[in-house]
This record gives sequence, structure tokens and C-alpha cells, in this order.
Amino acid sequence: MSKVKAIELKDIQNQTDHRRITVDKVGVKGIHYPIILEDRALKTQHTIATLNIYVELPHSKRGTHMSRFIEILNRFHENNLISQLPQFLAEIKRSLKAAAAYVDIRFPFFIRKQAPVSKISSLVCYDCHFQASLKDVYVLIIGVDVPVTTLCPCSKELSAVGAHNQRSIISIKVRYEGFVWLEELIDLAESTCSCEIYSLLKRCDEKYVTDKAFANPMFVEDIVRDLTLKLKQDKRITWFHVESENFESIHSHNAYAMKQS
Amino acid sequence: MSKVKAIELKDIQNQTDHRRITVDKVGVKGIHYPIILEDRALKTQHTIATLNIYVELPHSKRGTHMSRFIEILNRFHENNLISQLPQFLAEIKRSLKAAAAYVDIRFPFFIRKQAPVSKISSLVCYDCHFQASLKDVYVLIIGVDVPVTTLCPCSKELSAVGAHNQRSIISIKVRYEGFVWLEELIDLAESTCSCEIYSLLKRCDEKYVTDKAFANPMFVEDIVRDLTLKLKQDKRITWFHVESENFESIHSHNAYAMKQS
Amino acid sequence: MSKVKAIELKDIQNQTDHRRITVDKVGVKGIHYPIILEDRALKTQHTIATLNIYVELPHSKRGTHMSRFIEILNRFHENNLISQLPQFLAEIKRSLKAAAAYVDIRFPFFIRKQAPVSKISSLVCYDCHFQASLKDVYVLIIGVDVPVTTLCPCSKELSAVGAHNQRSIISIKVRYEGFVWLEELIDLAESTCSCEIYSLLKRCDEKYVTDKAFANPMFVEDIVRDLTLKLKQDKRITWFHVESENFESIHSHNAYAMKQS
Amino acid sequence: MSKVKAIELKDIQNQTDHRRITVDKVGVKGIHYPIILEDRALKTQHTIATLNIYVELPHSKRGTHMSRFIEILNRFHENNLISQLPQFLAEIKRSLKAAAAYVDIRFPFFIRKQAPVSKISSLVCYDCHFQASLKDVYVLIIGVDVPVTTLCPCSKELSAVGAHNQRSIISIKVRYEGFVWLEELIDLAESTCSCEIYSLLKRCDEKYVTDKAFANPMFVEDIVRDLTLKLKQDKRITWFHVESENFESIHSHNAYAMKQS
Repeated sequence: MSKVKAIELKDIQNQTDHRRITVDKVGVKGIHYPIILEDRALKTQHTIATLNIYVELPHSKRGTHMSRFIEILNRFHENNLISQLPQFLAEIKRSLKAAAAYVDIRFPFFIRKQAPVSKISSLVCYDCHFQASLKDVYVLIIGVDVPVTTLCPCSKELSAVGAHNQRSIISIKVRYEGFVWLEELIDLAESTCSCEIYSLLKRCDEKYVTDKAFANPMFVEDIVRDLTLKLKQDKRITWFHVESENFESIHSHNAYAMKQS
Repeated sequence: MSKVKAIELKDIQNQTDHRRITVDKVGVKGIHYPIILEDRALKTQHTIATLNIYVELPHSKRGTHMSRFIEILNRFHENNLISQLPQFLAEIKRSLKAAAAYVDIRFPFFIRKQAPVSKISSLVCYDCHFQASLKDVYVLIIGVDVPVTTLCPCSKELSAVGAHNQRSIISIKVRYEGFVWLEELIDLAESTCSCEIYSLLKRCDEKYVTDKAFANPMFVEDIVRDLTLKLKQDKRITWFHVESENFESIHSHNAYAMKQS
Repeated sequence: MSKVKAIELKDIQNQTDHRRITVDKVGVKGIHYPIILEDRALKTQHTIATLNIYVELPHSKRGTHMSRFIEILNRFHENNLISQLPQFLAEIKRSLKAAAAYVDIRFPFFIRKQAPVSKISSLVCYDCHFQASLKDVYVLIIGVDVPVTTLCPCSKELSAVGAHNQRSIISIKVRYEGFVWLEELIDLAESTCSCEIYSLLKRCDEKYVTDKAFANPMFVEDIVRDLTLKLKQDKRITWFHVESENFESIHSHNAYAMKQS
Repeated sequence: MSKVKAIELKDIQNQTDHRRITVDKVGVKGIHYPIILEDRALKTQHTIATLNIYVELPHSKRGTHMSRFIEILNRFHENNLISQLPQFLAEIKRSLKAAAAYVDIRFPFFIRKQAPVSKISSLVCYDCHFQASLKDVYVLIIGVDVPVTTLCPCSKELSAVGAHNQRSIISIKVRYEGFVWLEELIDLAESTCSCEIYSLLKRCDEKYVTDKAFANPMFVEDIVRDLTLKLKQDKRITWFHVESENFESIHSHNAYAMKQS
């Protein structure tokens, strides 16, 4: 490409827009990128994230410069993006002259867990996410989706010999003051269900989880209420949204409950 | 089952709850059900819906009775659910003694379209949805996801010979007064893009859509702004949320814009 | 577009190809279309299908004419596509001068089922499919994906009080002579599991399904073996492929078994 | 349950089965696990895999021991699973006394690419997979899904001013002798399309990719034929399966071609 030609490449996005409409969010969706996370047990963890990055587009500009999102992502990627989300958003805002910047980051997160009786350890995968925005102030929501077992209290009551149970997903999203580990939210979900799940269970463990679930029947309603009680007691939590969804073993639809603070 | 036994089946859900926490939404998710829709051209259309149905659970009850959602769905199903959403939610509220009831309904909706030059007709599929709630008042949001072609204004300006273009999805959600057809929202999206799409195009049609898209380059930002202008001019529309997402042909991530009234 | 230009519209697909490579399958994927099915109980059923349609492309032609797939689909759509699959494929072959034609059709299929004790009826949705090909002979595979409950024999043996159970999917695909209803394959799957599922269960029904599942513990291995025995006894079945997949309640991964005749 | 009972924890899976039916595949599906890959440029790369692991179950055993799959996965995970797939499958076979063992591994794989003109580098994500089996002999298939741009030759011919183009996925699976890098298959796909894609393009790059795609129109048929020619010339390749799928910008369905050696 010659220099002369380069000078001619028109910047269409930078044209003045006369429709006088601010666009709430403009940006890039579905970017896959390796990231490094802080890990309570192991200090750091490598994983693969899916990111959406947006800005608010001022009414006077025709378009945003989407390549800059990736340029800035590249720059922070090499310097630990996750620990610098406020700086990342500030740089996005500055570079794109925007009044607000947003980033959503979803990723699988692994925790090594010991089976309850055999104590054999294996990795369990949790879908986690950060949603951060910077307008006048910086706001961060962190969230976890935790697979658990739920056992139906009604079925247990009705039957002399068993109770239907199933895989369920508990989702917790919070805003907070100070510091909260993703691992704390995962622990919270796993302590608020019929029984937590594991990747590897020997026979002695399978007996344990079967018995534990039977001893702790819970409706989706019970889970979101108990999570509500626990989150309200945590002084760091300033906002929460909790969900519980059962992939019912006796239906092909799901049972669902949601509570927001 | 003997009568005596029936009397003994305990109603666990109906137990008094002492946690004093109202649950915002409790119900069933992911129910597949055939429905019948009003169709501007053909009067009615059979399709298959995916439904979520929730109530607000009072703090004093342990659980909701999930089978009643399906019983009431069955009853309305035979009497045209879609045209009776307020009555459906009223019956859900009444039966479950709830302060609020919610239903989300998603379904594919088909419109017979003529190719622009050959005039051969074929069916195009649009994902549509209704979100209705009844608390003190009834609120209905209707929405459409419309596949279209977008052609990049920047790429057209830069290149002497072509421009990258791609499949995109325009999403429009509205609240309104009076009556609005889903078909009107689909028309609106299809008139606010580089070129609408078709299921069947002969060569003369393919020339037409290639030329039309090239003559109408639009960014995702342009689409949400133009939709905003048009929706603001429609006196019936009391609220809207519009999105545009390009499955970029030159990237493996998407370009996205969103504007809410 | 001038008239002269229109006359010149070149048929690029029809050009001679010199690479001398037959393409195994060329066509269209992911077409959504309403279809009408035969229904054992109700004579006909409206549903929405997703179709893939392919031909084998002779080595001498550069490309196939994709619009013809849709034209022929439109024509058969109005005359009951599903009951005329051999004719549909013959017409595809003829129109595109192809040595082979293929169609895959997936759709939700609904059956009204009575709850086991209360006898209240509701609709259950099954994912079903037809895969048909016409080369020298016509070959048809029909298949069903059936949600069921499975209860773990090992967990039942280990625990004094319960057993883990979960939603599972049984998949059956068959070739046959004579006639086989989709409903027969669904019945077969529902009679080869711990307990079949329903959309609506009252308390007396929930007791019944809990007890029935507990009385019929089955591994994924048991299910594919019992299906194998039953399918081998059916004289009409000339080939089968069966799968069973448990969405394990105690793990976040699935248990799986497969057997092909 | 008494203590005596605990000691007796029965091994139900190990029971003799009398149905005399070998099960083709039994195992675990959808396990998420971090893995380390060889990387042509960077030596190693951390990523997250989704695995299915199966064995053939002898007719005489009632069930397989699913926990052993995870135990063996854990053991190899710490010693570079991917470089030891034959040993991994041999250990699965041995531990489960099976006649055959299978593993499917899917993962995102990242390559740093320079934009064509500005030379700014960024990461592109490719979905890759290994399918390995060990019966009497070890068989390995490796595969890549590569996002690219395709521009329609027919549309280019018909229109004076542009041509429709779109994001496409090229899928290549091969068996081989000697060694083949995933990067080589990705290079092959990216050199057999209208233009390769990038995560970050400045204006000078966007001009380049627009012009390059316009200069290289290709049907899905052209892509699988050209890949066929190239793969047949590579002496290492002993089997291949290639696919090309266009997310058509002018339709909401896809164009597709497939060729198997």
C-alpha cells in the first residue's frame, strides 16, 4: 500500500451523523480469547473466554471503530485483563471518545474437588462471568452457574421408597464491596442444594451423595430463598440475583425460581 | 389409588413458609406446545411454541403448584391461547393465588414472500415472541428477529470493486397501544437494512438483491438509528428496544448495536 | 438493469468443470418449513421441520442450482411432502440431473398422553426425524429422541433410602419393511426405561412415577440391550441404531451407551 | 443402613449379564477439562477441551465402571494427555477389560495472525478435534473448523458492482502417516477460500480483504474440490472428509458441500 493511497482511505465511521440519536451500545460480540484468572487455590488459572465489548456511541458520530476494541483487548491480554477491568474500560472509553464502556466475559472455571468419602480429587467445571461497565462510576457484577443435585420434597413425601431428583443449575450474580472470590459464590451454591456434584465418585462416594440428597430435599423455591437469606447476611454483598433451574427427571420441561435483591 | 390413600397425599407446596421471602418468579421453563396464531394474510397459522410460565410466590407459601400451569395451558390451548393472553394470566394468578403472573412465548412464524423480480413465492421463517405479565396491570411486549443482508459502508468506500456483506439479525421489541401485527415489525426491519432476504432467488433475483445491497450500505449503528426514527414516528409505539447484529464475513466475531427508547 | 443485460445473465453453475471430482453432497442446510404429518391418533398433525436437501454433483458440472431445491420443496409442501418422500427425491434427482438425492427432516412431534393415575391428559413433545436417500434404490431411516427417567441400579443397591435418577434421552433409528409409526418407536422407548415422563402430573401421579422408577432401575447399558432384544424380535426392522444418554444428577457430564445392528 | 451393609457395597456393574449383547460404545460424554497442546509457533498452548470417552462393553458384563474413565483422564492430564493418546486408550482398554476404547476431544485452538497490510497481530480461534480409537490397531482422525469469507461467483457475474459474500466454515478431517500439524490443516483451509478472516483489521487491511475476496469468487463446490485436489497430493494423507458451509447473506438457510476420500 502506497503512502498516497493510505491518505485517501476515508474514515466513514468518523463522519458526522445528523440523526441526533445516541446509540446505547455499539461494539463486538462473541470474541473468543484466552485469559488468565486469579485462583484461590492455585494463584492463577488459564482458561478461554467469550467476550462482548461495547461503547455508547455519541449522537454526532456515524460509527464506532471496532478494530480498537480488539487492539485494546490485545494490549491488556498481555498484562492480565481480568485484574485490570476498570483500566481496560477506561482505555476503551478514552480511545473511542465514549461516555460509557461495557464488557461481558464468560468462561469455564475449574476447581479441584475431593470426593466426599474416597477423597479422590478431580476437576469440576463452572461457567462464570464478569459484567463490567464504566460510565460515571465503575460497576462490576460477577456470576457463577453451578451444577448441583436437587431432590423433590413432594416426591419424597409421597413415596415410601425414593424420590425423583435431577441435575439443576444454580445461578448467582452479585455486586459487592471489598473482594469476593468466584469460589465463594460456588461454595455458597454447593452448600444450598440437596447435594453438590463431583466429576469422580467411587461406590462409597455414590452411596454418600445418594443418602445426602435424600436427607436434603429442596424445591427451586427453597434454594433461592436460602440463598437470599445467606446473601443478605454477607455485609460485602450490595446487590444479588439468584436463580435455580431443575432439569426435572419426571418432565421434559424445567422447574425454575428467581429472586432479585 | 384408593380414596383413603388420596386423602393422605400431603400437599408440601402448600405448607406455610417462615423465611418471609417473596420469590419474584417461580414456574415452568421450556415447555413445547403447538399454538395457533393470527396471520394478516391467511387469518390463522399453526406453529410450535416454547413457553415459560411463572408466578410471584407469596412469602407465606413454601411452593407453587407447577402442574396447574400445564392444566391451564391445556385449557386455553383449545381456545386460542394467543388471543387470550390477559385471560390466561388472570386465570394463572387466580388459580395460584399469586400477586403476579408472567408468560414468555417464542415461536417460528412464516410469511410467504415473492422474489423481487421473478415473483416466485416461498416461505421465510422469523423467530417471534410475546412476553406478557399481569401484576396490577397487563403489560405485553411483542418482538421479532429478522434475518437480513447488511453491506459495510466502510468496505464499499475503500474498495473499487465490491464490499463485504453478511447475514445479520435485526431484533425489534415493542410495547404499543391499539394493535400492531408481527408482520408490521418484520416489514419495518426488512425496510431498514441493505437488502431483505428470501428463501428462493432465481438468477434475475440474485442480481437484484446483489445490486440493492450494494446501493444501500449500512452499519449496525445506522440500522438501530433508522429504526429509532421510524418507531418514534409511530404513535402506537409506547416503548421499544432494537438490536442489530452482523455475522461479519471478514471476522469470526459479530458487530452489534442496541438502542432502547 | 437494461433488457440487454438481463438476457446475458450467465449460468455459472452450469459451466463445465475440469477438476474431474464428483462432489458427494451439495445442497441447502437449515431450511425451516411447516409440514403436515400422519398421526396415528389424530390422522394429521401440523408441525415445523428443519430440512437439509442435497444431491451428488457430477464431476462435469461446476455447481448445483440451489434455488431448485426450494422450488421443488414448495411444490411438494402443498401436496404432503412426508407421504411422498420417494417422489420428492426422484424429482430432485431429475431436475438437477444428479445420480443421488438426500433429504434430512427434523421436527417436534406431539402425542397426547394421560397421566398414569389421574388420567388427566396433556401433550408431550418428541424430536423426530426422517433421513431419506435415493441413489439406485430408495432408503429411509426414521428416528425418535424420547425423554425418559432413568434410576441408577448401583445407587439403589448402595443406599437404604433412595437412588439417584435423572432425565435421559433414548434415541432410536430404524430401517424397516412394511410400515412403522413414529408412535411405535416412542412406545418402545417409553417401555424400556425406569419410567416414562409426562407434561402434567398431579400428586397421585407423582407418587406413581416415583415408585415406578424406583422399582425399575436401569443403566444406559441395560436400555440399549433391552431395545436391541426387542428390535431384533420385530420382523419389520431391517437395521437399527439405539442410544441412551443420562443427564446424570450426580455429575455434570453424561453417561452414554450405543448399539448398532 | 448398618455398618455391615457398608462393607458389602455390591459391584452391580460387574454382575454377569445374560442377554449376550455386546454394547458398541459405553462411557462418559461432555466432560470439560483443561488440556495442553503442542503449538507449532509457541511450543505449547493451554486450552479447554470437551471429551467423550467410551469402551466396547463385553456381552458378559452388566455395566462399565464410569469413574475409571475420569481417574485415568486425571492421571494422563498431569502428563500431557494429547501427546499420549495411544497410551491413554491402552490404559482405558486394560483397566476396563474392553476390546475397544474411544476418545473424542474438541477444543478451541488459537493462532496469532498478522493483518495482511498493517501487520498488526491478533488471535484467531479455531474449533479443532481429535477422534482416536484403539481396537486391534490405533486410529486417529484430526480435524479443524475454519471460519473464512466466501464470495459468490454467480452473484459477481450477474452484478456490475458487487457480489454477495458471507462467513463460511470449512471443515477438514484427515487420517495420516507421519505427522500433520493442526496448523497445516488451518493453512490449507485459509488458502482455499475467497479470503481468510482476521480478528483485527485496520482500514488498509479491510480494503485488502474486500479486494481479495472479490478477486477470488468460490462456490462451496469449488472449495471441497480444491481441497480434494490438494489433499490427494499430500503423500501423508491416507483419508479425508471435507465440508464447506456458507451462512448465505441472501438467505437464512446455508449452502453446503461435502466430499469424502
